[in-house]
Amino acid sequence: MVDIATRVYNHRWRIDPIVRSLLDTDFYKLLMCQSVYRNARDTQVTFSLINRTKAIRLADLIDEGELRAQLDYARGLRLTRGESTWLRGNTFYGKRQMFRSDFMEWFETFQLPPYHLEKRDGQYELTFEGAWPEVMMWEIPALAILMELRSRAVLGDMKRFELQVLYARAMTRVWEKIERLRKIEGLKIADFGTRRRHGFLWQDWCVQAMLEGLGEAFTGTSNCLIAMRRDLEAVGTNAHELPMVFAALAETEHELRQAPYKVLEAWHEEHEGNLRIILPDTYGTNGFLAHAPDWLAAWTGVRIDSGNPFEGAQRAIDWWRARGEDPRKKLIIFSDGLDVAQIEDLHAHFRGQVKVSFGWGTLLTNDFRKLVAEDALAPFSLVCKAVAANGRPTVKLSDNPEKATGPAEEIARYRRVFEVGAQAAMPVVV
Amino acid sequence: MVDIATRVYNHRWRIDPIVRSLLDTDFYKLLMCQSVYRNARDTQVTFSLINRTKAIRLADLIDEGELRAQLDYARGLRLTRGESTWLRGNTFYGKRQMFRSDFMEWFETFQLPPYHLEKRDGQYELTFEGAWPEVMMWEIPALAILMELRSRAVLGDMKRFELQVLYARAMTRVWEKIERLRKIEGLKIADFGTRRRHGFLWQDWCVQAMLEGLGEAFTGTSNCLIAMRRDLEAVGTNAHELPMVFAALAETEHELRQAPYKVLEAWHEEHEGNLRIILPDTYGTNGFLAHAPDWLAAWTGVRIDSGNPFEGAQRAIDWWRARGEDPRKKLIIFSDGLDVAQIEDLHAHFRGQVKVSFGWGTLLTNDFRKLVAEDALAPFSLVCKAVAANGRPTVKLSDNPEKATGPAEEIARYRRVFEVGAQAAMPVVV
Repeated sequence: MVDIATRVYNHRWRIDPIVRSLLDTDFYKLLMCQSVYRNARDTQVTFSLINRTKAIRLADLIDEGELRAQLDYARGLRLTRGESTWLRGNTFYGKRQMFRSDFMEWFETFQLPPYHLEKRDGQYELTFEGAWPEVMMWEIPALAILMELRSRAVLGDMKRFELQVLYARAMTRVWEKIERLRKIEGLKIADFGTRRRHGFLWQDWCVQAMLEGLGEAFTGTSNCLIAMRRDLEAVGTNAHELPMVFAALAETEHELRQAPYKVLEAWHEEHEGNLRIILPDTYGTNGFLAHAPDWLAAWTGVRIDSGNPFEGAQRAIDWWRARGEDPRKKLIIFSDGLDVAQIEDLHAHFRGQVKVSFGWGTLLTNDFRKLVAEDALAPFSLVCKAVAANGRPTVKLSDNPEKATGPAEEIARYRRVFEVGAQAAMPVVV
Repeated sequence: MVDIATRVYNHRWRIDPIVRSLLDTDFYKLLMCQSVYRNARDTQVTFSLINRTKAIRLADLIDEGELRAQLDYARGLRLTRGESTWLRGNTFYGKRQMFRSDFMEWFETFQLPPYHLEKRDGQYELTFEGAWPEVMMWEIPALAILMELRSRAVLGDMKRFELQVLYARAMTRVWEKIERLRKIEGLKIADFGTRRRHGFLWQDWCVQAMLEGLGEAFTGTSNCLIAMRRDLEAVGTNAHELPMVFAALAETEHELRQAPYKVLEAWHEEHEGNLRIILPDTYGTNGFLAHAPDWLAAWTGVRIDSGNPFEGAQRAIDWWRARGEDPRKKLIIFSDGLDVAQIEDLHAHFRGQVKVSFGWGTLLTNDFRKLVAEDALAPFSLVCKAVAANGRPTVKLSDNPEKATGPAEEIARYRRVFEVGAQAAMPVVV
């Protein structure tokens, strides 16, 4: 029996909104936003959406009106009372009241700020300018909207059973990955796939399949809305945007060199335990670890997000040993373009040496490779980054020169200041 | 939004009924039933359900109470007004009023007669006794109920996503078959998969997938209920039960030898065109064709349902030529345990020589091979046959000695009377 009211109601929607909640974002954005709100709320930043895969001409695929309608819809969102209650009342990483009252009061009235959209060379130039705590909240919804509009554009002409079989194939693929992961003893893995997901409902499906298929090995999702609805742990800590913005604000080379540590000082005061995870690659892991203050070696772990992950993890282990720390008590989180084979290899290699966990992203929530003609749903590398702070360009180097962002002369300056030597280039898939 | 009324209503069902309509049966049962009703309605017959795959111990898998509840539910069914309207008003094989008023009046008050159920050696002995037109209507619902209860028994312990992925895999498999079939130019294929289907909803899905995927190449379904609901052609002509019962009633060896032709005489008077399809294998195709009267050579086609289908079809072609008929104007329907590779081969081999069409059964609607542990959903050979008529045993020989049914001494007598020589044994999969 059709629920007529539901059907009539659904047909009144002008669009099928992609982002329907301010909590449909990564948990670490909220953690970072609180930190920024408390420590640097007046910093003016520009975020820009960049498609690193130029061959995918998003502006040809996606209708501008539809994109604007989705962005406008997201701008209309406010934190609901139930969402606020969940953030205020929940325990995150074992801690009650992770989000303080002053931040929650601000967030309860928050709306996403205006955006600027232009087409150029078959791509969209989508930028956001304003106060850092506001602008930064665009990152995940902007990416999720673009990604899902691209999926919809590709799927637009498919017939009903063709579509059902497409999803049947994709489900089978995810499940076969889960069946392989199930065999890994001691696995700990979380969903980090919000930003480049195929679509919201698909991410939600993948998360539930992980929950059923992996049980205790599945440690949670970075997506706050899914965590809330499915009663899961919301996970994540911090990202490159903090050192990138603070570095851009540095007045001297000394300040610049210290910026990545200064960011973590504030984090150290705010957070403990499993939230004390170093992301060392913003300006090269080698230099970061070599010059790191000793208190950082006492942190819980390291997240490896670029470069060769075996080398990156080994570097962290060696560093802990050199600083008198026992690596077996430390945690390494791998999160860069993972898929099952690499998860198996990394787990097998490092198990026993260090605690290992995985933040699985795009190839969990958007692996539709080869499932449609011309591989038109292949994942691609879309990012939304801070490109300027108080009028100065930001720079990210990472451990893979292919992932470096910023003006060329600034990249060169940063490479010099941070003493980044030769780096091996690796292809960026996602 | 949940439709609360639907949910409450659904939870009131004591069981989840498998057969919910008297039209959830094969079209040829209705055609044959009308013929029997008009020509032999007082004949007393016994039908018996036989599991030819002894390794599958149905009585260990399926709860007797559940089986009885399903059979009892089917006994409560009556033809609805809309179903009657569809039968009376529809055009079948280009003919209006295929079902005459006297038959329809009888069918409108029809209910399935009592059944007799016992357990023996891990199997169910399920028999039906009474007037032929009533008893014969049990064949398809009895098979469909047993098949679906077996599916449910195997799936009973599976978790939610495990189940969804199982169906995702099965859908993908069906779709891949359809994608292969789509490449066959001039293909004509129908669904004959009611009796040994995985389940009703699954058959309905397969039929709709065929419709979307094959378009004009998909010529219809043998299932009347699905044909009615999906606005498709209902297809099928006649089966072995007619010659089997008439043969059992023969008083002399001459009458026995003539019985298969006498059955078709009545059919000849009743039907034309594409309903004039010979099923020659009941007592061996060779003898049947050799002794067939000339008017049978003028019939539209032959259905090949046992033995080597290449040999069977070639035999029919040779026979038509010998009788002065042009095989290119004749139709051969293949319907014995088909899967895609054989459909491709048969089509490629006979295309141009004769019109070819396919009745695809179990491996369309129940191909879950290797999809669950221990291959517990592999198809198996369950049949429901007339075993006696007016107190005498029936016999079927077919072109494969593995498919012969009846008492051994009667099989021997029939083999002698019908001059059946050596036959090649072929494994019976479904």
